[in-house]
Amino acid sequence: MPDNDRDLLPEGLQDRLPQGAAVSARVQRAMLDVFHSRGYDRVQPPIIEFEKSIASRMAGVQPRRMFRFVDPSSLRTLALRSDMTVQVGRIASTGLSEAARPLRLCYAGQVVKIQGDGLDPTRERLQVGAELVGSDTVAAASEIVVLAIEALKAAGAEGISVDFTLPDLVDTLAASALPLEGDAVDAVRRELDAKDAGGLVEVGGEAYLPLLYAVGPLDRAVARLAEFDTSGALATRIEGLRAISDRIGKGARVTLDPSERHGFEYQSWFGFTLYAEGLAGAVGRGGTYRILGRDEPATGFSLYPDPLIDALASESQCENVLYLPLGHDVLAAERLRSIGWRTVAALSDAEDARALGCTHRLQGSEAVPV
Amino acid sequence: MPDNDRDLLPEGLQDRLPQGAAVSARVQRAMLDVFHSRGYDRVQPPIIEFEKSIASRMAGVQPRRMFRFVDPSSLRTLALRSDMTVQVGRIASTGLSEAARPLRLCYAGQVVKIQGDGLDPTRERLQVGAELVGSDTVAAASEIVVLAIEALKAAGAEGISVDFTLPDLVDTLAASALPLEGDAVDAVRRELDAKDAGGLVEVGGEAYLPLLYAVGPLDRAVARLAEFDTSGALATRIEGLRAISDRIGKGARVTLDPSERHGFEYQSWFGFTLYAEGLAGAVGRGGTYRILGRDEPATGFSLYPDPLIDALASESQCENVLYLPLGHDVLAAERLRSIGWRTVAALSDAEDARALGCTHRLQGSEAVPV
Repeated sequence: MPDNDRDLLPEGLQDRLPQGAAVSARVQRAMLDVFHSRGYDRVQPPIIEFEKSIASRMAGVQPRRMFRFVDPSSLRTLALRSDMTVQVGRIASTGLSEAARPLRLCYAGQVVKIQGDGLDPTRERLQVGAELVGSDTVAAASEIVVLAIEALKAAGAEGISVDFTLPDLVDTLAASALPLEGDAVDAVRRELDAKDAGGLVEVGGEAYLPLLYAVGPLDRAVARLAEFDTSGALATRIEGLRAISDRIGKGARVTLDPSERHGFEYQSWFGFTLYAEGLAGAVGRGGTYRILGRDEPATGFSLYPDPLIDALASESQCENVLYLPLGHDVLAAERLRSIGWRTVAALSDAEDARALGCTHRLQGSEAVPV
Repeated sequence: MPDNDRDLLPEGLQDRLPQGAAVSARVQRAMLDVFHSRGYDRVQPPIIEFEKSIASRMAGVQPRRMFRFVDPSSLRTLALRSDMTVQVGRIASTGLSEAARPLRLCYAGQVVKIQGDGLDPTRERLQVGAELVGSDTVAAASEIVVLAIEALKAAGAEGISVDFTLPDLVDTLAASALPLEGDAVDAVRRELDAKDAGGLVEVGGEAYLPLLYAVGPLDRAVARLAEFDTSGALATRIEGLRAISDRIGKGARVTLDPSERHGFEYQSWFGFTLYAEGLAGAVGRGGTYRILGRDEPATGFSLYPDPLIDALASESQCENVLYLPLGHDVLAAERLRSIGWRTVAALSDAEDARALGCTHRLQGSEAVPV
């Protein structure tokens, strides 16, 4: 071909070929089926919107991370969505503002960002998630965490673990039991996030040191957090964490990292990160928050299943496919399809059924191995 | 809200709210399931690509109709896809160039164009389709037309009709039985397309006049076409049309409009347009063509199911939803979900099950109407 250049895809974008695409569809269906069975209704926002509408809706989304372009019809800037949560928030605040609360919504779709993260060049990802709008209570958080775990399991993930965090922990303490002045709040948050004990002392956050050790398996970490919380400022949070963990039961390994802040800047009292065996990095994240503009409480999560899809697609798959020779019995083929067979009909008698991926061949009304 | 402006969506873009989104997912699944059962493997190309890669691959796609923007990583122009057929053609020519032929591929995804068509402002649409790569024979065309009809039926379309056309008809005749010189070929094509008998005579296409009357229900129209084809230049095409129509049987109403050219500029010997009862305009289109670059024969179709989804979503739906009060029997709920119930779990005892859309309530292990 004279022009191989046009065969290339831009960095961080890929095709899913048959095996991967089939797994992707199966994973997405499995997750959406779990959401549907728990009363979550799917919504489908458009893949582009006014930049301003997306950017203004959640402080967590940076417009500079989105592809932007001018709309010739409105002469305004549009953006290719990099996150669907803000779109679902918009729908809850507009088209579904009158729907009864709690409102259960879910979504699945492609999101695109202008640059990859660090060493990972991926720019287009599948995002699948659920939002419980109108509530950010312990009951809401429990439902959401359990839902995320069940969706991951239904999709084929194994060895799931959940890391809890308390995103507004420092603010809560700084405002009551362990007062901090002005800039010190940010500094303490930063040093806790960096897990830097020396730095923490330096910025006047000595009293916060025990938080660095209230990490690990939930029971022990929460016990340490309770010991540290002599004032009781965290009592309801501690009770909440225990209740959520009880609801998870044996469904996942649960850990605590109370001062982990990365990615939870806009969450309120509770956040969580999901991991699964064999997958590098987090497979999803969620928590409680308030929908900007409407200031409505909500709890939700987003899953990014591409690494799970890649892992499942690399496992060998074996599927029966039935070759239908020219002049085959059409009704027999119909009947076999109705009980789950895939069929490939001959276009000519010069074909090699095996090369076409067929495992069987229709003879009379019988499927015979090729 | 102080800033209602940000609640607006750009012209021609919309959210699908729960009812429409549920129907959309169902329609898409039904179509993809039909493709899968007939041996078509799904592929998933990215939603953006190099503009050049899309634009160079099929003459039918005009880059000016796509949203375009610069990629900061490559400094090249990217485009938001306005059509997935060219992407599937690229995959068949690159990642799957070594796969056995005929190669059966299918796809489903959102496509976006920069402007609506005429009075229809819609800019984002769902495109679902299948491509049979490596063959453009009568057998391939028959399989593809029947597949399109079955996919539409499985999705809930009724009263399907198919309009056949012969895209390269004028070229074929002009090169043999009814010679035309230079510009006259284009002029005759244009006047036939406009169905203008006077214009046709004026540009020297008098001999082509009978084509204007070989339209309508297939049997009669093909008989007229055969009468007109005294030289036999169209004999194999006529035989092909009859064979495809026979394969459709009672599956759809079949008509012929041999000189219809709109939308088939890049198809070879056979093209078809799909209609369904109650839906304005065509619901899909397909035909035989050659993949540019690789010059490989192929047959395929694209469906644009949004009007079908809108029609189905407007019919009233009734679904049983089971409310699970606080402290409900978790195993009973699990069991009811496993037999297809949707459940909504209470977050507090202040909720109104009926307002939340529930039709039943779990009492002990029984579902009782609310």
